[in-house]
Amino acid sequence: MLNIRRSEGMEFTKMQGCGNDYIYFNCMEQELSEPGPLSVRLSDRHFGIGGDGIVLICRSDIADAKMRMFNADGSEGKMCGNAIRCVGKYLSDNGLVGDKNELDIETLSGVKHLVLHKQRSGVRSVTVDMGPAQMHPSSLPVLIEGTQVVNSPVKIGGTSYNITCVSMGNPHCVVLCDDVEGLEIEKIGPQFENSELFPERVNTEFIKLTGKNTLRMRVWERGSGETWACGTGACAAAVAAVENGLCAKGEDIIVRLNGGNLLIKYTDKTVTMTGTADKVFDGTIKL
Amino acid sequence: MLNIRRSEGMEFTKMQGCGNDYIYFNCMEQELSEPGPLSVRLSDRHFGIGGDGIVLICRSDIADAKMRMFNADGSEGKMCGNAIRCVGKYLSDNGLVGDKNELDIETLSGVKHLVLHKQRSGVRSVTVDMGPAQMHPSSLPVLIEGTQVVNSPVKIGGTSYNITCVSMGNPHCVVLCDDVEGLEIEKIGPQFENSELFPERVNTEFIKLTGKNTLRMRVWERGSGETWACGTGACAAAVAAVENGLCAKGEDIIVRLNGGNLLIKYTDKTVTMTGTADKVFDGTIKL
Repeated sequence: MLNIRRSEGMEFTKMQGCGNDYIYFNCMEQELSEPGPLSVRLSDRHFGIGGDGIVLICRSDIADAKMRMFNADGSEGKMCGNAIRCVGKYLSDNGLVGDKNELDIETLSGVKHLVLHKQRSGVRSVTVDMGPAQMHPSSLPVLIEGTQVVNSPVKIGGTSYNITCVSMGNPHCVVLCDDVEGLEIEKIGPQFENSELFPERVNTEFIKLTGKNTLRMRVWERGSGETWACGTGACAAAVAAVENGLCAKGEDIIVRLNGGNLLIKYTDKTVTMTGTADKVFDGTIKL
Repeated sequence: MLNIRRSEGMEFTKMQGCGNDYIYFNCMEQELSEPGPLSVRLSDRHFGIGGDGIVLICRSDIADAKMRMFNADGSEGKMCGNAIRCVGKYLSDNGLVGDKNELDIETLSGVKHLVLHKQRSGVRSVTVDMGPAQMHPSSLPVLIEGTQVVNSPVKIGGTSYNITCVSMGNPHCVVLCDDVEGLEIEKIGPQFENSELFPERVNTEFIKLTGKNTLRMRVWERGSGETWACGTGACAAAVAAVENGLCAKGEDIIVRLNGGNLLIKYTDKTVTMTGTADKVFDGTIKL
């Protein structure tokens, strides 16, 4: 367009999955120095590019690529189900993995397997093998006796709840609710997060069955508050719904988050998550 | 960088002045259809580019260029002191106005005069003639008798305040405070905004003199809540400080906002505002 001088600088791509938005950099052939402080600066939504953090797509010796992610506070994250779908789309749409339909991506939580679902315009959605769900209280940890916590009565913030606890590598407490939309999550979320039942704090999913194998869910993430989407949280919600007899094991379960829908399948072996991955725009910034 | 396929689409530039960030489009030789709905979509900070709105830089028959701005809710704005500085930088840095150091920009609030302050890398800051301050109560309007409202005692939300009222084309109520930082602005701001004293509501500036000709200011904008910067609000604050004998007429007054500093000069003829204009990044998006 016209004779506008485009800036020299580092190219990036803004992508989002269920509204969980990161700034993606191709680090296959160049390094990004000090990614932590850079993430703080670039994630700022008024003075920077704006995002939930930055994602570095790097070479891997053991997989098709390595994903490194840094949160908006500069800390390095282990794994994000919404971000890794975008990594799959980025690699495929940019011709960095040929015409492969399945990819292995190295993360700080191990190598994750992706199945790409393509349309003519590129990758539209991605299925991620999120690994097996763990139910033992020590895996979260949650300070309740027994081998699993399913529909267990507890008292939190002076109110009685029945909770189901699931670890997807990170700790989740799932609560069945009659009214998810009207929930005072800003008040209740912190009560769960900081309950002495969860010595390492906890992510809490408030869910309601709204149809066959369909859940409405809102999530309170430890350290972040209410977010629009939490991939491991959607997995934990589906697992809990199955363990409570609300949904069917081995079948597709739709989880309706604030930021969009995820499709979860829970088997004895593993939990898979399918969701869209969208490119919003390409950009160039002087670092 | 590398062999990444860049998207076809519309080019834009993200710029900010005191953290007031807009998405800028060059519309000199092409039109942007339906800018209102487009602003809603693009301003979304998770699913879109993210910003306080979009700015269209268009041809003008009566000035060097015309600025049209659309808020994040899709409504068209008349004028924004932070945005117009960025328009000046955009036009100059991209060679659209030759080597001019002064520009006239057409807005829905009339033609505004800009003086560009350049460094080797381009325009660094811009002075905008914001027009004269009006003190008559009918110019806001504010329902208080007399020819001006300066240090006038009122009761708002059950508390006594002394207020100074200034119109900069839009209505401002300026309040001197002992503790600007500790102010419960979320509680007090709406009480001013919705007071029956201001039939068309009001923007409220809470200020404190922190040094010679230096003010700290927080602003509650009608319809927006607390914002990081308000250009007309900074002008009104400086005018009120002069009228209350705290600062000197005709001298530079520094106003320290949440998003950065603005330099205001208040004379009998007009009020000028000087502040930085920053490009954050260039982008391309499929519309």
